[in-house]
Amino acid sequence: MYSNTRDWTVEWGDCDAAGIVFFPRFWAAFDTSTSQLIEAAAGKRSADIFHAHGIIGWPLVDMSARFLTPASFGDKVQIVTCVTRVGQSSIALDHHLSLAGKLCVDASEVRVWAGARADGAPGIESRPIPRALAARLAGTG
Amino acid sequence: MYSNTRDWTVEWGDCDAAGIVFFPRFWAAFDTSTSQLIEAAAGKRSADIFHAHGIIGWPLVDMSARFLTPASFGDKVQIVTCVTRVGQSSIALDHHLSLAGKLCVDASEVRVWAGARADGAPGIESRPIPRALAARLAGTG
Amino acid sequence: MYSNTRDWTVEWGDCDAAGIVFFPRFWAAFDTSTSQLIEAAAGKRSADIFHAHGIIGWPLVDMSARFLTPASFGDKVQIVTCVTRVGQSSIALDHHLSLAGKLCVDASEVRVWAGARADGAPGIESRPIPRALAARLAGTG
Amino acid sequence: MYSNTRDWTVEWGDCDAAGIVFFPRFWAAFDTSTSQLIEAAAGKRSADIFHAHGIIGWPLVDMSARFLTPASFGDKVQIVTCVTRVGQSSIALDHHLSLAGKLCVDASEVRVWAGARADGAPGIESRPIPRALAARLAGTG
Repeated sequence: MYSNTRDWTVEWGDCDAAGIVFFPRFWAAFDTSTSQLIEAAAGKRSADIFHAHGIIGWPLVDMSARFLTPASFGDKVQIVTCVTRVGQSSIALDHHLSLAGKLCVDASEVRVWAGARADGAPGIESRPIPRALAARLAGTG
Repeated sequence: MYSNTRDWTVEWGDCDAAGIVFFPRFWAAFDTSTSQLIEAAAGKRSADIFHAHGIIGWPLVDMSARFLTPASFGDKVQIVTCVTRVGQSSIALDHHLSLAGKLCVDASEVRVWAGARADGAPGIESRPIPRALAARLAGTG
Repeated sequence: MYSNTRDWTVEWGDCDAAGIVFFPRFWAAFDTSTSQLIEAAAGKRSADIFHAHGIIGWPLVDMSARFLTPASFGDKVQIVTCVTRVGQSSIALDHHLSLAGKLCVDASEVRVWAGARADGAPGIESRPIPRALAARLAGTG
Repeated sequence: MYSNTRDWTVEWGDCDAAGIVFFPRFWAAFDTSTSQLIEAAAGKRSADIFHAHGIIGWPLVDMSARFLTPASFGDKVQIVTCVTRVGQSSIALDHHLSLAGKLCVDASEVRVWAGARADGAPGIESRPIPRALAARLAGTG
């Protein structure tokens, strides 16, 4: 399965009045990790993937997380993101965020490959993930 | 069990480039719903609860959500938040966010009643929820 | 000139590690105040204004602010927003945010009425504000 | 005068429904640029500066910006931040954010070196910037 590892430094604006990361900001970071992983697998920037495949993105449909240790302003953490399942039109991923080797956040998400509705009505619908990209994500291509 | 219902209007800055709510912003809204619920049960503002009980807050330790239907700029949604379990030092809650009666987000979270470490070392530790408040939250007081 | 007054309660996620509102969050609040003012003057929701007039919005092109007194979690502040000038395709506004009658933030901004480029190239360009709406905003209609 | 240059990649969550950076997010980026500049001048992490000098931070008291060209998801922009004036307890800075050499945002801000009130009352008050750091920031030390 495909994976992506990156460093992320906690910014002042990511923290709340308790001096620790406000948890929705962890998810903004994970969102970027997922985009980077898909861009790396596709060999293209997100905007180019959207255009090439006629999609509006990969909206999140399911998420969960456990928060084990807080992180604070200036902490340099590591985010490891791994694909755990590739379906017809969905991708499941795990994110492990750690500080100095200690796990802070253990998160999972499911994304759907989505485009505008084919019948022209408002709203979005799932689309099949392009076969070559699905194989790359699954580690078989 | 205690519950809280409130209206929330999606703002421009809550939405992403697909024109729908960027999912971490739903959690900022749920965070406010939880604080409102605890404030209502305690009959005090959060800052006064922190001060009265010597805590730093009620950090989230576990979360999950399913996203069923997107919401967009200007949508007036309803958030129903219910306590589902009250432990010694933890509270579990569900959030149901709906638009015109249709469920958009089905979320769950666990919070811990937390204070600075009693031994003076950096970091936080759980504290017992005051008995009267726990009873109010559980619907038995 | 048209004006709009609204209450705004500072949320936990609006505050930084110093326990006061992280200043970009004031601007998210002002952004909503401006949209509410334009919606009230137009008698329509933003999405309907966009659609009726073929615009993508009213992006901000100029801003300034002075921060006089901080606001904290749970503070119930008042935001008064006033149109100060209505041009061919631009609107200038002031925002005064106060807590218990004491001015906290004194801010100004300029917005442009903008649509997609008429020649089909990527990007946006200014459009004339509809005459009736301009008159309402200027207080002459 | 001291300056700092850094790259910043626009993330999905930084953009609004018009597909361009929601302007408060530019200020979250500038906030980080200022912290990086002060850390570089001081040779210490922010948390260590706070602790060493007994301050709570460098809150922003004045800001202004002009937005000339929008930036979108995935754009790799450059932020150049320069000190323009160092006072007894204040620092003025400019931020120039550009995309492929084209100026997008031209911004200015004033920060105050601030600590908790010496008389123990709630609130913050300005403090003199340490002489050696002021000289580094002004380019004379």
